[in-house]
Amino acid sequence: MKIALAQINTHTGHFEKNRNKILENIQKAKDNQADLVVFPELSISGYPPRDFLDFDDFTEQCIKEVETIAGASEGISVIVGSPVFNNNESGKMLYNAAILIQDGKIVQEFHKALLPNYDVFDEYRYFEPGREFSLANINNKKVAVTVCEDLWNIDGQALYIKDPMDVLGPQNPDFIINIAASPFSYTQRDRRREVLAWHAGNQKVPVVYVNKCGAQTELIFDGGSMVMMPDGKTSVEMKYFDEDFCIFDTENPASDCVAKPFVKMEAIYSALVIGVREYFEKIGFTKAVLGLSGGIDSALVSVIAAEALGAENVMNILLPSGFSSDHSVNDALELCKNLGSPHEIINIEDGFQTTLKTLKPQFGDLPFNVAEENIQARLRAVILMAYSNKFGNILLNTSNKSEAAVGYGTLYGDMAGALSVIGDLYKTEVYELAHYINRDKEIIPNHIITKAPSAELRPNQKDSDSLPDYEILDKILHAYIEQILAPQEIIDLGYDEALVRRVLKMVNINEYKRFQAPPVLRVSPKSFGMGRRMPLVAKYLA
Amino acid sequence: MKIALAQINTHTGHFEKNRNKILENIQKAKDNQADLVVFPELSISGYPPRDFLDFDDFTEQCIKEVETIAGASEGISVIVGSPVFNNNESGKMLYNAAILIQDGKIVQEFHKALLPNYDVFDEYRYFEPGREFSLANINNKKVAVTVCEDLWNIDGQALYIKDPMDVLGPQNPDFIINIAASPFSYTQRDRRREVLAWHAGNQKVPVVYVNKCGAQTELIFDGGSMVMMPDGKTSVEMKYFDEDFCIFDTENPASDCVAKPFVKMEAIYSALVIGVREYFEKIGFTKAVLGLSGGIDSALVSVIAAEALGAENVMNILLPSGFSSDHSVNDALELCKNLGSPHEIINIEDGFQTTLKTLKPQFGDLPFNVAEENIQARLRAVILMAYSNKFGNILLNTSNKSEAAVGYGTLYGDMAGALSVIGDLYKTEVYELAHYINRDKEIIPNHIITKAPSAELRPNQKDSDSLPDYEILDKILHAYIEQILAPQEIIDLGYDEALVRRVLKMVNINEYKRFQAPPVLRVSPKSFGMGRRMPLVAKYLA
Repeated sequence: MKIALAQINTHTGHFEKNRNKILENIQKAKDNQADLVVFPELSISGYPPRDFLDFDDFTEQCIKEVETIAGASEGISVIVGSPVFNNNESGKMLYNAAILIQDGKIVQEFHKALLPNYDVFDEYRYFEPGREFSLANINNKKVAVTVCEDLWNIDGQALYIKDPMDVLGPQNPDFIINIAASPFSYTQRDRRREVLAWHAGNQKVPVVYVNKCGAQTELIFDGGSMVMMPDGKTSVEMKYFDEDFCIFDTENPASDCVAKPFVKMEAIYSALVIGVREYFEKIGFTKAVLGLSGGIDSALVSVIAAEALGAENVMNILLPSGFSSDHSVNDALELCKNLGSPHEIINIEDGFQTTLKTLKPQFGDLPFNVAEENIQARLRAVILMAYSNKFGNILLNTSNKSEAAVGYGTLYGDMAGALSVIGDLYKTEVYELAHYINRDKEIIPNHIITKAPSAELRPNQKDSDSLPDYEILDKILHAYIEQILAPQEIIDLGYDEALVRRVLKMVNINEYKRFQAPPVLRVSPKSFGMGRRMPLVAKYLA
Repeated sequence: MKIALAQINTHTGHFEKNRNKILENIQKAKDNQADLVVFPELSISGYPPRDFLDFDDFTEQCIKEVETIAGASEGISVIVGSPVFNNNESGKMLYNAAILIQDGKIVQEFHKALLPNYDVFDEYRYFEPGREFSLANINNKKVAVTVCEDLWNIDGQALYIKDPMDVLGPQNPDFIINIAASPFSYTQRDRRREVLAWHAGNQKVPVVYVNKCGAQTELIFDGGSMVMMPDGKTSVEMKYFDEDFCIFDTENPASDCVAKPFVKMEAIYSALVIGVREYFEKIGFTKAVLGLSGGIDSALVSVIAAEALGAENVMNILLPSGFSSDHSVNDALELCKNLGSPHEIINIEDGFQTTLKTLKPQFGDLPFNVAEENIQARLRAVILMAYSNKFGNILLNTSNKSEAAVGYGTLYGDMAGALSVIGDLYKTEVYELAHYINRDKEIIPNHIITKAPSAELRPNQKDSDSLPDYEILDKILHAYIEQILAPQEIIDLGYDEALVRRVLKMVNINEYKRFQAPPVLRVSPKSFGMGRRMPLVAKYLA
């Protein structure tokens, strides 16, 4: 039996685009004499559909699309993901389904039983868990059809008390199919292989795993669909971060589809490039703008944007004030030259002095403080957004995860932008990625990497005036944010108690700033945004 | 048997404050010879605790607090809400529990079985549903102890397939207790009474309902705890929007606790005042600042803030530009006089002209458009935030729901602020509330109410240049947002098809702006923010 794995990039709510991709891949599968073609989870609607699922109209449109696709599926079997209605008299209105189409007819639905509702996932918000499980019969093979999380309940401390594989496994399927919409993080590929290998080994059958690729705002889907064999090795491993199509022949499992190994910084770089590119493609814009300070964060964003959109489509605006050092301007200009990106220099000093004059009756002779610092950051945002509004370039945000964590940024100032490109990278990871980018030649000028970080909002300011060394800060933040450790547990790792408590308090009291931050491209297992829902106005560790 | 209902205002993560309130009320219950005192849902942690629940340390602290409270409960029974650990080997780590303490000892836990996971609720993110149900024995009475949503599964299309009352009801409890953290909306009181009356009538026993009050950022809890009798009438109905304490004697159900009737605009006004007051109290700030334009939205926010914080603590900043009309300044000044609030006039024209000059090399002779309009709105935010940073006044946002819906606002401009006060009121409701405020005397100058709304960002601009009449717009928005109707269903209500499609498209394509908006005080059944999670970068109706 020949199974086609169709790793496609869907667009939430874009029924026409999704349908056409599915139809093209069905044709391709037929052309390759496949018996079955498998698409990712919720391919019809795109993933995640979120509260569009509250509209019956949305699900009705999905079902119409499934019918259209069935009509084009003569002579082949198709498994495709779509929301469907729950016709029982109680429970949530919808199921998250894998739908089996055979020779032009919808023949069976498989309802996702394990509904992730942690981190970025909200599936129990919409879907009733499936409770009835039976195998599919496809070309006289017995097939266990599952949806993403359905296979992830294998730990000692299982999250779910009922597991569909406890029912399906004893029926001895010939193979397992899993359709997925599994977002990238730099830990995800290893974990995914472990999970699939566990089932392949346990059932002694291949697991055919089809994941989506592309990005949907902050979520980046890395593809990497595969066929995991009972010996824990992959027969098929498809491309990461791009669409792909492969045939797996159950009679002859050897395959040419082999992805190259996955290295952390390379994968993060690819993910961020895809994240930026897809954001622009899916909103229908082509040009970006950003404030290029001469520091490492904006330099990195400029490089990523140039790769994603083409250097000529990335406008770098240098916005010096009286506190900017000469090297900031020179370093920024050198980067633009290296990239071949356009730039403008727009000095904010007149605007700053005018604003101070305007505020003189209120401010009087009060000393210069964070108010004046923030005025500069916000006037830069005024200029950048004016440029954006006038010329249609979308503003990219350049904040990193360390500063977002401790609130070392100006709301409506440097925190502005439509998309936070590196907001899920700690400052130390920003440096790592810069070194990765410069691995063959100096794209980011070395001086940008080697100089001490500074916001340049007052004379001789350095990040280290306000913050602990990033080497230590980032480790404490990682322990708190990714590892979800308590203060005492972090102190027990060997960090100074007062420092730990100060850092955690900074994180918690600045939740109000992150509430208004742009969506952050997610590359870690715990990024700021919808995957981390913290109270504002709260007192825990604050 | 005498039951004390302790309607308290808790603070998320503020263990000391919550514990002290609970201890005070236990003492008060003892002083009143009560046999039992009942506290709201999750009183120990505050509600909602959100992802603090991912920290074992947080739940461990909650449990320590329960033990402290048990130690102070000799001679009385106490029911209090807290997260507790799930000690089974599978399922989510926590239960949302009502804990029964008797004579100083923790004797029984009741695990919430129905976990709301729609709108603003995320309870299945944290909690395993309870699956075992038994009555409590309190003073030889059989008591069904339930937590909030546990009683809400009474519709024809029940959301949950297993209902704890199906197990507890047949055991014939003498009464039902429900501890709640049920947020206010203007429809909630009626619905709540229906639900409680259904159970009281069905079981033919009183339902003792204890809800929390106060606000936690966007969620406002209205209290209104009650004892619903089998005849569908309340014996006890406690205060709305404030802490309260009442005794219900099961042998003598008549009570002095009677709340006054609940009128929509009066309730909304109270809710918004509480929402603002609590936000400031819980973050430890006393002073607000806002931009007072002379229009009705900012006027309303100024009135609400003055009521919440004291007029002297609300700084109104008038920020005229060259496009501002004289009446805008005069109307705003008259309002400040009526309220007794301080004001400043800070003209942004110099800043605007300087910014235009700064951008002249880039903008050249391109025509004045939305870029220049937004510069003015953003320069106002620069001034307001500078004032906020210098003097410690928290900036209040003045956007309404109609403009937030269609994207008629400037990101980082008039959309700025720590808290959106009237962001859940459509423009027509803004007028309704203004009339309510002026019911006895003219607080908001009549001219503010009667003049045509304008953003005054270009000569002779009117909202009606860009938007349909608010009377029609708001009805279409309500049909789409609150009623979740499809385009065709809205058209079928009698609205012009092109207009409906244009409005819905405006709502959907402006999701990116609302993503970065401040938290919105929620007074309707569907407000923008965490209760409405829409995709960005999507194509449905866009």
